[in-house]
Amino acid sequence: MEKIKCTLSYDGTHFSGYQIQPQNRTVQGELEKALMTIHKGWHIRIQGAGRTDAGVHAKEQTFHFESFHTFPERNWKRALNTLLPADIYITAAQKVPASFHARFDAVEKEYRYYVWNGREPDIFRRNYVYHFKHPLDIEAIKRACSYLEGTHDFTSFTSAKSTVKGSKERSLYEVVCKQDGQEIEFIFRGPGFLYNMVRIMVGTLLEVGQGKRAPSAIPELIARSDRHFAGETAPPQGLFLWHVKYE
Amino acid sequence: MEKIKCTLSYDGTHFSGYQIQPQNRTVQGELEKALMTIHKGWHIRIQGAGRTDAGVHAKEQTFHFESFHTFPERNWKRALNTLLPADIYITAAQKVPASFHARFDAVEKEYRYYVWNGREPDIFRRNYVYHFKHPLDIEAIKRACSYLEGTHDFTSFTSAKSTVKGSKERSLYEVVCKQDGQEIEFIFRGPGFLYNMVRIMVGTLLEVGQGKRAPSAIPELIARSDRHFAGETAPPQGLFLWHVKYE
Repeated sequence: MEKIKCTLSYDGTHFSGYQIQPQNRTVQGELEKALMTIHKGWHIRIQGAGRTDAGVHAKEQTFHFESFHTFPERNWKRALNTLLPADIYITAAQKVPASFHARFDAVEKEYRYYVWNGREPDIFRRNYVYHFKHPLDIEAIKRACSYLEGTHDFTSFTSAKSTVKGSKERSLYEVVCKQDGQEIEFIFRGPGFLYNMVRIMVGTLLEVGQGKRAPSAIPELIARSDRHFAGETAPPQGLFLWHVKYE
Repeated sequence: MEKIKCTLSYDGTHFSGYQIQPQNRTVQGELEKALMTIHKGWHIRIQGAGRTDAGVHAKEQTFHFESFHTFPERNWKRALNTLLPADIYITAAQKVPASFHARFDAVEKEYRYYVWNGREPDIFRRNYVYHFKHPLDIEAIKRACSYLEGTHDFTSFTSAKSTVKGSKERSLYEVVCKQDGQEIEFIFRGPGFLYNMVRIMVGTLLEVGQGKRAPSAIPELIARSDRHFAGETAPPQGLFLWHVKYE
């Protein structure tokens, strides 16, 4: 058996999320269907670096699988892209040692979130940005971002439905907010994220930008360890899993 | 009765074109449905500046209609946008004299066509660009563009199915090709266009870019007045009706 690592982009608009579900169109479901065709009906289970929700995109997601085929690497990329729908694209396929694991070996992930802060919508980007009309104080958002960096208990920034057991302590290496005209880009980098964590941080940062919260109120919000005190969960379509880093 | 002129953007991806059809989702159909709601069930017929095919977008299209309502202009914009789906957006509504006609008063139209000339697709723009992998000689395309400018018989550049009677002489004020990294933008400006004319010009210019035709062969192609000698019709998703100009 050979182990193959793939990196891929997908447009989350028309998927019920990454993780396979019996009745719905999912990224994992489409990938396993393509692999089943290549493996003459054998079901090949894939292991992704992580999951994304319905409507969330991936600029670069990763998965691995094992195969009885011994194709050259470039043939894997071509064979999969020939079979996959237009909203999934394999950007690279490479052979990896049997010890490799797409989820457990990931050392860092980067997420980006895009806000369109114009009065008028950009209908051609409606599935890729959150259209937020209220004027924003970007300098206040930048100060709030710096309070999120570092190692904290992020209980306030994860869904109350989260099924994670154990510690909700996570580290953020970088939290950045950039403005380019009417577009606002958020970048979050860290070794691991809780469920809905990025979208709740963005929802909270947008309240800071509206003056509903002070940037300096972020440490207190973290200390409360209660989801109810953070902002709303920003909608999925602005969120991109941007990069998964391996050693 | 008051006459209202509206400008609008639409994402053509999920429409069977602009013009109303009984069984299919069209831009005109959605606009007339919204107007029927505003007019308590009365059917208000709209007049567009022109039609676009399935998959073709509009950055700025225009239409007019007559109404027994006497709303302020800003209420028209708000009322329509509240009722319209997310892939149509009214950018402006204004009252115009009874003599105004969206089609007959238009003095100039601008179309733009976008080509993504990278080896790898950009899946997030797949509905808004033509992904063309073959390397292109942009300087050759620019020379060919200049031969298209001016007044010519464009019979070679319109669908053989075209139902236009009379002259196929048209004028192009400007034909431009710009490269920005892997993106190529074509701009076409003129008082009027034939059916499929922009897409056939783009298909032909891409053959020039591949070295299949010389730029200097364009005048001969025009002179032949035969669709069979021009290039393929470029696909619809790269095309945008960009602007409709009035005096």
